[in-house]
Amino acid sequence: MFDRGVISFLHYLKFVVDLFCMTREEKFMLEAVKVGTQGMRAKEGGPFGCVIVRGDEIIGRGCNRVLATKDPTSHAEVVAIRDACKNIGDFQLTGCELYTTCEPCPMCLGAIYWARPSKVYYACKQEDAAAAGFDDSFIYKELDKPIEGRKIPMICISRDTATNMFEEWIANSDKTLY
Amino acid sequence: MFDRGVISFLHYLKFVVDLFCMTREEKFMLEAVKVGTQGMRAKEGGPFGCVIVRGDEIIGRGCNRVLATKDPTSHAEVVAIRDACKNIGDFQLTGCELYTTCEPCPMCLGAIYWARPSKVYYACKQEDAAAAGFDDSFIYKELDKPIEGRKIPMICISRDTATNMFEEWIANSDKTLY
Repeated sequence: MFDRGVISFLHYLKFVVDLFCMTREEKFMLEAVKVGTQGMRAKEGGPFGCVIVRGDEIIGRGCNRVLATKDPTSHAEVVAIRDACKNIGDFQLTGCELYTTCEPCPMCLGAIYWARPSKVYYACKQEDAAAAGFDDSFIYKELDKPIEGRKIPMICISRDTATNMFEEWIANSDKTLY
Repeated sequence: MFDRGVISFLHYLKFVVDLFCMTREEKFMLEAVKVGTQGMRAKEGGPFGCVIVRGDEIIGRGCNRVLATKDPTSHAEVVAIRDACKNIGDFQLTGCELYTTCEPCPMCLGAIYWARPSKVYYACKQEDAAAAGFDDSFIYKELDKPIEGRKIPMICISRDTATNMFEEWIANSDKTLY
């Protein structure tokens, strides 16, 4: 019915209209998708991206970099949190929003709670990630188990030796609490 | 009954005898305590240390460095995992043991599952850490909640935009799985 040029034009028009109709939050999520797509195409790691926003400014960006850095903790959210904290010189992201292209895994969720942003926006759900081969439900299940029953054996030793460190910390009046 | 010199000598003797009677695992845990104590005294972060062992060699070390790096993800276990992976050039710690001076928080536990060491030894328990002001039970409880009910609001937006990335990942036959 239409030739290719017209179809391409209509696609472009749809993209422009979509962009125009996007909310502020959808625009930031699109940025997280861009960061993730760039990282995936550069073979830095899996298809995940994250941006951190303060006010209307992006203060931190991260894609999954597990392959590039050979670091299993380099998930998009962790990379973005580290980047944002470095940029603002603070270990707390109070008042910030975190945009991640997928529901965070338990490690990233822990990192988010330590960094304390005010709000998290996520796009894909756990089941979308699982369908692409990224299944973290195993870890969620492991965290729910008592420490004695986990797949990776976790054994308590030398408790007394290490409590000395806590006693020294408690006794020290010249410490920074965090 | 005894003068100070004798008491000091007896303390030293006890230390030497204890060291002599230590198991292999207790010696590695003592090393983790040393790493943590050094970091705490240098005001790098809280009283936490970790070492990672392959065979009988320490391949990674970490203390809590949240204050020094202003990075909320710089917990001892994460720092040690990153150090070990860097040293061996691999994002997996298969066959390794992880020694941490305290039960890992949810973030560190997640990091441990992604790094996949064979065994974890820990010294202090969650309640010891809580008594020293480090209470991560809040995060454990949050992880147990459905995503809609958490203290930090977590909102799903733009799911379609981000699933494109997963589709591109699935369609790409030239990718490294991890």
